[in-house]
Amino acid sequence: MGSGEAWVVMRTGRAPSNIAVIKYWGKRDEKLILPVNSSISVTLNPDDLSATTTIAASPAFVADRLWLNGKEVSMESQRYKNCLREIRERANDVVDEQTGVHIKREDWLKLKLHIVSENNFPTAAGLASSAAGFACLVYTLAQLMGVNERYQGELSAIARLGSGSACRSLDGGFVKWDMGQKEDGADSIAVQIANETHWKDLVIFIAVVSSRQKEVSSTSGMQETVQTSPFLHFRAKDVVPKRIKEMEDAVARHDFSSFARITCADSNQFHATCLDTSPPIFYLNDTSKRLIGLVERWNTQEGSPQAAYTFDAGPNAVLFTTESNSSLLLQRLLFQFPPAPGVVLSSYVVGDLKTLELAGIKSLKDLASLEPPKELAEPKIPLRTPGELAYIICTRPGRGAFLLKDLGSSLIDSTSGLPFSK
Amino acid sequence: MGSGEAWVVMRTGRAPSNIAVIKYWGKRDEKLILPVNSSISVTLNPDDLSATTTIAASPAFVADRLWLNGKEVSMESQRYKNCLREIRERANDVVDEQTGVHIKREDWLKLKLHIVSENNFPTAAGLASSAAGFACLVYTLAQLMGVNERYQGELSAIARLGSGSACRSLDGGFVKWDMGQKEDGADSIAVQIANETHWKDLVIFIAVVSSRQKEVSSTSGMQETVQTSPFLHFRAKDVVPKRIKEMEDAVARHDFSSFARITCADSNQFHATCLDTSPPIFYLNDTSKRLIGLVERWNTQEGSPQAAYTFDAGPNAVLFTTESNSSLLLQRLLFQFPPAPGVVLSSYVVGDLKTLELAGIKSLKDLASLEPPKELAEPKIPLRTPGELAYIICTRPGRGAFLLKDLGSSLIDSTSGLPFSK
Repeated sequence: MGSGEAWVVMRTGRAPSNIAVIKYWGKRDEKLILPVNSSISVTLNPDDLSATTTIAASPAFVADRLWLNGKEVSMESQRYKNCLREIRERANDVVDEQTGVHIKREDWLKLKLHIVSENNFPTAAGLASSAAGFACLVYTLAQLMGVNERYQGELSAIARLGSGSACRSLDGGFVKWDMGQKEDGADSIAVQIANETHWKDLVIFIAVVSSRQKEVSSTSGMQETVQTSPFLHFRAKDVVPKRIKEMEDAVARHDFSSFARITCADSNQFHATCLDTSPPIFYLNDTSKRLIGLVERWNTQEGSPQAAYTFDAGPNAVLFTTESNSSLLLQRLLFQFPPAPGVVLSSYVVGDLKTLELAGIKSLKDLASLEPPKELAEPKIPLRTPGELAYIICTRPGRGAFLLKDLGSSLIDSTSGLPFSK
Repeated sequence: MGSGEAWVVMRTGRAPSNIAVIKYWGKRDEKLILPVNSSISVTLNPDDLSATTTIAASPAFVADRLWLNGKEVSMESQRYKNCLREIRERANDVVDEQTGVHIKREDWLKLKLHIVSENNFPTAAGLASSAAGFACLVYTLAQLMGVNERYQGELSAIARLGSGSACRSLDGGFVKWDMGQKEDGADSIAVQIANETHWKDLVIFIAVVSSRQKEVSSTSGMQETVQTSPFLHFRAKDVVPKRIKEMEDAVARHDFSSFARITCADSNQFHATCLDTSPPIFYLNDTSKRLIGLVERWNTQEGSPQAAYTFDAGPNAVLFTTESNSSLLLQRLLFQFPPAPGVVLSSYVVGDLKTLELAGIKSLKDLASLEPPKELAEPKIPLRTPGELAYIICTRPGRGAFLLKDLGSSLIDSTSGLPFSK
């Protein structure tokens, strides 16, 4: 590589969001982002919820720069620096097929990067965009720099330095983040426990809540919990290890009843731990509680779990059900939470629309004629509160991070080395 | 006593409500109402929150009968039967001063009772009327039948059989319910840790929340928690015993900072335990959370506790502060929670109105000109939501159960033996 040459080498990757069903809350090491307990997540279909990131390297670049969802942001955060440093240290000689440029491993230490990243879902929706974002950054960077894992999970340990839950977004399907024991965090890695084809029967809805108060960030929230909650340590030590095993079993056996029971219990215990913090942290609001009520009433009526809910550090619900129950759950959601007046169906139910078709709902008129679900006959509960949800995303478990080979997917203009202007 | 004689002998007693600052949640024995942990409460001034009960005995009565807040209700519940049986067994010979009637101890076993009880606050407000009610029943019954305690706390153990928290409403000031160890519950009694004159500086506001969803009864709620919450046993065994000691210390030393810190932490932990129940139990709603936010922001702004909150099995807040801060707290409450349009001040702020005068608030106009408290300058929070509270009760720690000697206080017509018609 000669200096002054005008080449730009780049890669575009995509990484999914994930939703924890055994929750991560609390770090035992703030710097290395080592958790107080292991966690398990379901990877969400990247078609519906993912980050896409283009990373370009060029001798013409004078600094590492980052654009997130159309806005340039600072890379001063230690989280970015740690991820970049760890990948650069592991870089290899690369010959770029596209340009024929040859980059030596030592060159990567000097080459500056332009990074452009976008989510395919609104950041404001509070759908944990940092997990997909950091997973995508680390994955795409590793691809660009020819990094090979020296041990399984090495990349996940680097993504973990960006955002703890990001380590669970490299793989598809069902992923366990093992808390590990080592002081340097080398064994605090994510491992796939089943891939995305293992449990095809699982359907996921995300109910995005409209009115959102200012929320406590998960980083500072978990710090406060570690410092003040008497429950956290007990949960990490005495409750979670058993649940991790039970959840691995439930996934292996496609046992929806156990999966649902543990998922709901662990979401509730996570929020209980937040409430046990001083001052207390509230992520669930009255709409979240009505979503929980919808699922619990249905499950009670049927005498066994038909659906499960889980909530991260915000009021949005992630709901699980099985294929055969999916239209029943969507009908219940749409019955109790119709869209605000003026909102069209196509912007209210988004993502994988197969379930909407299965439910026989083609228009807002079909919504108006929905029958109340049987568990609502008695007792009478105030219902049908239009506009409480902003929209509903229909999705499924999905694949892990991957490269987009199509040049049209690139977010960086190869001639300018800058983001395409929109 | 000759049969057919038309005499009626009666007593009228009054017993206060109490609010737990270390919470009682979970029974180790459902029948004897023995708790999984000890608890501590503050007795509320009976002038503001109490039950008043008249109990009459007459050879003309053919059955035990009970009228609660103007309506006759069944006495079939084991809770009533247990209280009546225990007191009747301890009855003594009584010569009634009023009528000159002489009743022998064995007569009490046959004499039927008419019991009329009323609260001086709306039952619908969800202000744990059962504690005051059962304490008043047991206390007044014991007075009527000449019962003397054979050991301290014997009456509280009987009130406990009616409603666990009722045992804490016989004494004034600060009361500990010792969980006890015995299988028969004889040592699960309430003891006064300081009387109502001990900490004159303490001021109490009760913020009664307007919109109330149907709530899980505390009896069934605590059963479900005992059966399903991993946190409950840990709380009872590892958290509460330490807090009981710290709270006793704080009360002894008039240490408001510690009192406030423990009170808030224990309220939050009780609700966290409810949330850790399957299905989860929610007693706090979005208004409750805004009340917590009001107190927490003020405390954070000042760098030390200025006020404390605690919530029982419902969304109403009981707020504590000191005399010198009382008008500041009331102003904050009235700033953030103005009454609904059309509600007059005199029905919005009730009880002990000294603080309202101290705060210089004489009319709704004075409310409109309240300055925002300094902690609200930044960040901007949606505020001033009229009508979220139904009303605010101003009160203080108060005395325990007592007899009303004035015949005009009686709720039973001595000629008919029935409740006065209203």
